[in-house]
Amino acid sequence: MIFNFIPKEFNFFDLFDKQIDCAIEAAIHLRHIVVKGSVDDEALKKMQDIEHKGDEAAHLIIDRLDKSFITPFDREDIHSLAKEMDDIADMINTIVNRLKVYKVTGVDKNLVEFASIIEESVKTLAVAVKGMRNMKHSKSVIDACVEVNRLENVGDDLRDRVLAELFENEKDAIKVIKMKEIYQDSETVLDVCEDVAHVVGSILVKQA
Amino acid sequence: MIFNFIPKEFNFFDLFDKQIDCAIEAAIHLRHIVVKGSVDDEALKKMQDIEHKGDEAAHLIIDRLDKSFITPFDREDIHSLAKEMDDIADMINTIVNRLKVYKVTGVDKNLVEFASIIEESVKTLAVAVKGMRNMKHSKSVIDACVEVNRLENVGDDLRDRVLAELFENEKDAIKVIKMKEIYQDSETVLDVCEDVAHVVGSILVKQA
Amino acid sequence: MIFNFIPKEFNFFDLFDKQIDCAIEAAIHLRHIVVKGSVDDEALKKMQDIEHKGDEAAHLIIDRLDKSFITPFDREDIHSLAKEMDDIADMINTIVNRLKVYKVTGVDKNLVEFASIIEESVKTLAVAVKGMRNMKHSKSVIDACVEVNRLENVGDDLRDRVLAELFENEKDAIKVIKMKEIYQDSETVLDVCEDVAHVVGSILVKQA
Repeated sequence: MIFNFIPKEFNFFDLFDKQIDCAIEAAIHLRHIVVKGSVDDEALKKMQDIEHKGDEAAHLIIDRLDKSFITPFDREDIHSLAKEMDDIADMINTIVNRLKVYKVTGVDKNLVEFASIIEESVKTLAVAVKGMRNMKHSKSVIDACVEVNRLENVGDDLRDRVLAELFENEKDAIKVIKMKEIYQDSETVLDVCEDVAHVVGSILVKQA
Repeated sequence: MIFNFIPKEFNFFDLFDKQIDCAIEAAIHLRHIVVKGSVDDEALKKMQDIEHKGDEAAHLIIDRLDKSFITPFDREDIHSLAKEMDDIADMINTIVNRLKVYKVTGVDKNLVEFASIIEESVKTLAVAVKGMRNMKHSKSVIDACVEVNRLENVGDDLRDRVLAELFENEKDAIKVIKMKEIYQDSETVLDVCEDVAHVVGSILVKQA
Repeated sequence: MIFNFIPKEFNFFDLFDKQIDCAIEAAIHLRHIVVKGSVDDEALKKMQDIEHKGDEAAHLIIDRLDKSFITPFDREDIHSLAKEMDDIADMINTIVNRLKVYKVTGVDKNLVEFASIIEESVKTLAVAVKGMRNMKHSKSVIDACVEVNRLENVGDDLRDRVLAELFENEKDAIKVIKMKEIYQDSETVLDVCEDVAHVVGSILVKQA
């Protein structure tokens, strides 16, 4: 009978992997877009497809969670993990959508810098999320979580620097409205990554 | 003894009904205001009264929840439901208040369109919320939740379209600041409706 | 054996005290800054130190919570309390940081008024939080929670008044962008205080 439950446990990890892979895909796509300096309909569509794929994985996790008797760790931690990981691709999608809706074009070096840090953070987070399958890897999981926290601080400093620059140099208030929101959203992606790292960290503590 | 508990169960449903009725009242009031194109003190007062009535129902639910041994479904779902439903009238109140504080006057056809979709979404949500009393109605509950999700997507597209228009046509940055926030808030109401529909959906799954 | 657990219970209260003391320190520091009308590097550093100290207390609470078998009240209430109290110093830090990044200088009487109400609210909240140790003080805890709620309403009215003023008098859209965000953040601090008061109130109800 127990063999009926074990595959369900493994499924959670498979779905977490799928979610974090979507987040990586979203982060890479964002970097490509800002390096190119424009969002066309195709790029927007691709972003939405990535986000939907992530959404599906998240919904499947929540659905399984409601139906499973045995879960690999605390139900509420699984719920938070699925929810917070979903927020990564969601928030990146929001940024790409704003670039399109606000017709922001041209390469903005600050945005390129943000996209690089976001990609680095999400890839590091993937090490933590995928490492949860095997608690023998807990050292590398912890290291990854610490690095995600560090990158969030890097993002805070970057946001402060680019906003100060924006208010200093940009005299077109409408441009300020647009870019301020996009920079703040970029930093929010790093906040969400840190939130995911916290959940992973707290799962680790409970399993220790 | 059991008869002491049953009325408490029914009370939860009565209070959910009261909450969603307040949300409907708020949505109708918002539409009237934007169709008229101005918020006077009386309209603002009426909005606040609706919101307070909703608040009272929400507080009563949380209070009962803390004191009840038996609840019609998961305590955390009841908590989420009360909290999220409260957010509907809250957010509509925020919009009405901004219209007043920012002195936005004149009929804005985009805002009228938003108000219509919000009213439709809240009324559809009421079908779902009220249908929970009797799980024989689960088909109509599910249909209503699906429709609320669809209307959230309609709202996303509308927000993108009206923001693109705003940035394209409005040269007065201060007007942009005001309307951008109000359009985004309007879309947020639809997000909150979708959140409520998700909670209802997950309650249904667990009862199935 | 039970004596091993009791000190752990007391530790939670000690850490709650530490958190709310950090929040008070942050509120006083904010008032000093806005009365002076400028944020220098030293003032920014001091703010960050206060916030980090609060963060540490919050993390310690969450960590203990994961490891404790017996807790003075519901685990989820402890979690909410630690999280929400942390948000107070966090949000105040955000305001101070914006004043620095946006280079807002000069004494703004509206901001001074906000800072005074924030300080009053946080100090009142401390009476509630510290009163939880001894349920014989429940009357004074409840009174403090009611007062925090009242101050949140005062803050709402203040925000509406200062935003109306800002849109009425300030013709520089970039200045509007900056101050609007800072006023709204100030009101958010009072919202967070109210959230903490709600958690304290619900703990009281359960213990009654």
